[in-house]
Amino acid sequence: MPTIDPDRLMADLRELRSIGAVETGVVRPALGEKDMEARRWLKAKFEAAGLTATIDGVGNVLGRSSKPGPALLIGSHSDTQPRGGWLDGALGVIYGLEIARAMAEDPATAGLAVDVVSWQDEEGTYMSCFGSRSWCGTLDPAVEKASSNAALGMTLTEAIAKAGLTDVPRMTIEKDRYLGYLEAHIEQGAYLEEGGLHIGVVTGIVAIRGMRFRFHGEQNHAGTTTMRRRKDAATALFEVAHRVNQEFPKVAGERTVWTMGRVAVQPGAPSIVPGYAELDLQFRDLDETILDRFEEIAAEIARDVGARGKVKVEVERSRTPIKPSWMDEGFQKHLTGAAETTVPGKWLSMPSAAGHDPMVISEKIPCAMLFIPSIGGISHDFAEDSHESDIVLGCRVLADAAASILEERRNR
Amino acid sequence: MPTIDPDRLMADLRELRSIGAVETGVVRPALGEKDMEARRWLKAKFEAAGLTATIDGVGNVLGRSSKPGPALLIGSHSDTQPRGGWLDGALGVIYGLEIARAMAEDPATAGLAVDVVSWQDEEGTYMSCFGSRSWCGTLDPAVEKASSNAALGMTLTEAIAKAGLTDVPRMTIEKDRYLGYLEAHIEQGAYLEEGGLHIGVVTGIVAIRGMRFRFHGEQNHAGTTTMRRRKDAATALFEVAHRVNQEFPKVAGERTVWTMGRVAVQPGAPSIVPGYAELDLQFRDLDETILDRFEEIAAEIARDVGARGKVKVEVERSRTPIKPSWMDEGFQKHLTGAAETTVPGKWLSMPSAAGHDPMVISEKIPCAMLFIPSIGGISHDFAEDSHESDIVLGCRVLADAAASILEERRNR
Repeated sequence: MPTIDPDRLMADLRELRSIGAVETGVVRPALGEKDMEARRWLKAKFEAAGLTATIDGVGNVLGRSSKPGPALLIGSHSDTQPRGGWLDGALGVIYGLEIARAMAEDPATAGLAVDVVSWQDEEGTYMSCFGSRSWCGTLDPAVEKASSNAALGMTLTEAIAKAGLTDVPRMTIEKDRYLGYLEAHIEQGAYLEEGGLHIGVVTGIVAIRGMRFRFHGEQNHAGTTTMRRRKDAATALFEVAHRVNQEFPKVAGERTVWTMGRVAVQPGAPSIVPGYAELDLQFRDLDETILDRFEEIAAEIARDVGARGKVKVEVERSRTPIKPSWMDEGFQKHLTGAAETTVPGKWLSMPSAAGHDPMVISEKIPCAMLFIPSIGGISHDFAEDSHESDIVLGCRVLADAAASILEERRNR
Repeated sequence: MPTIDPDRLMADLRELRSIGAVETGVVRPALGEKDMEARRWLKAKFEAAGLTATIDGVGNVLGRSSKPGPALLIGSHSDTQPRGGWLDGALGVIYGLEIARAMAEDPATAGLAVDVVSWQDEEGTYMSCFGSRSWCGTLDPAVEKASSNAALGMTLTEAIAKAGLTDVPRMTIEKDRYLGYLEAHIEQGAYLEEGGLHIGVVTGIVAIRGMRFRFHGEQNHAGTTTMRRRKDAATALFEVAHRVNQEFPKVAGERTVWTMGRVAVQPGAPSIVPGYAELDLQFRDLDETILDRFEEIAAEIARDVGARGKVKVEVERSRTPIKPSWMDEGFQKHLTGAAETTVPGKWLSMPSAAGHDPMVISEKIPCAMLFIPSIGGISHDFAEDSHESDIVLGCRVLADAAASILEERRNR
């Protein structure tokens, strides 16, 4: 088994953290100056590890082993949320780097091929999983052309130009080279911490669906319009939202989640009866039959409230549904084996409730994911953190699993 | 009884409408170019009617009769909402002008004193009832100094300077001169139209109270945060708002109204559990005991939802409460008498659910108000309108009542 170097691992994580550091967090949105600086730093690190490194036309950084395949690809993303945590993405990339180094240093594994990757824009500054989509060849050019970031006032095409990547070739998957892809990530939730556990082995990434309710009422004077005459879009919205929260628990599974995170009430003045309102509803589970029921219930509630004839209620899917992504069962056995050996009984097989690049990549090659605990379950926030002991432990487990996957193949 | 001239009345209303006309509506916000143009036009009209006209330092336009008092003051406001109707305010000002002219033309009433006024900024572009507050001496200089319009990017002080009024003296009430103040206005609701009625005699202007709920939860990831761990500010808001709509009808009177017109959910993204939310609740009635109960119920609901310990719920008054304003009973008798003579059985005594300058002025001198029907109850909208027959009828009733009030006093 390869031996990872905890000091080197932590030093690299801290150095990467310093690029775009703000307070305790990191601000390194995709294709921005700091993101590209981090990618150039990663390229140099990959080269120092003996890999042939390339930054491609979307900003993916690939470090390719000179060893013949079949290879394992290990990595994650180095772009961040607008106010991101220091480990989200970075952890998985540096794990890949450290595992490639540790394998090369151990004569028993030096002949095995580990490539390392940092995908571009997993966080969706312009388009979520942009880099892995590009690599997998599943990127829709029309969608790419239409992608932009309103807050930054820039289109994806402009951002690529600004990063100097317009004329740089884009890499695509060498399907025959790869046994599969491994990614480690912080859990971003609190299941592991609450259970006193140290490793999560991901079974699958949940399906995500989104719906948007639209309420068409009649804007009016908040004094002179009697309650009976009102067609108050907000009143209908409050009822629909409250009923969703009453009805969904009746069919939800243990890990089902739903969120109504965006509300718009127009014109939005205390003295005006709202004439129009919008409500976004998102829900996630591995089990799509639950999500099917949610869609039916949402439609029933909308129909029921609309049927009173005061406010017209429309509801429709607001995003292309994301199907559940299943992680490779063989890979999972290697991960659970390594976890059980390293921390007996202190690991858990669990779904990922957040989206990750393996949603895209698992359509092309087998994938697996490993989680380490997030302190307090905090994520997408400067306060995100993990215990150093868990960071080191996670890298050991992933390294052992990677070696065991490659060796199993070599011995076949 | 004085005889009003319907053609002159309609011609003046239409000419005033042309100043700031946009589509079928009028855009003449207080102290803006079009508003000041309209005020200069009114000044000339008042002078042509034989009145001594002044635009004062806040933009109030007063046409003062040369006849000795006691006088009746008749008018309304000529500023509009950002997208206002053509009769809101303008109607009452032109009624005053036409009644002053008609009284002067009739030898029987030519000796009676009618002053005409257009108040500044009734609509609250900077401060609602700014002009009448100034005239009544109840304007708080600190509040004036702090008043501004965010959308226009201007303070009230700057707007006064831009209108060239900074060094112009401000008029104040001549309390001994006035028997009282009469104002006609469009109803802005649909009670008259629905009842097939033509005149509303206002009993009082409703009390208005406002409350703001603040929901302090915890922002989090919409995938990885389990339902049990969530402190979702929006979920608490939906429940509070829905329960307000369930509980208020149990104690509301026939004409009580309540509105939740402003909702803010932060950060407002479909994939983020909201950490903070705000909800504005406004309610109006002449009967303050109902409003007291509403405040208690709102506080009970906030306490109950907050007591679950997930989301902290605060609720407090969001505005200085407006007390009910009672219209003068003697004046009301003259108005109902004139209405019954002109349209027997086709008038109604009713409260005003919208605010008007008499809220301010009735603290100083007796006030009364007359409503004419609004087509479809539409108000604060370009589509606001009234039938020409009702416009003419309302002016006749107000003229008869004004003459009868002044004659009663002369004969005393």
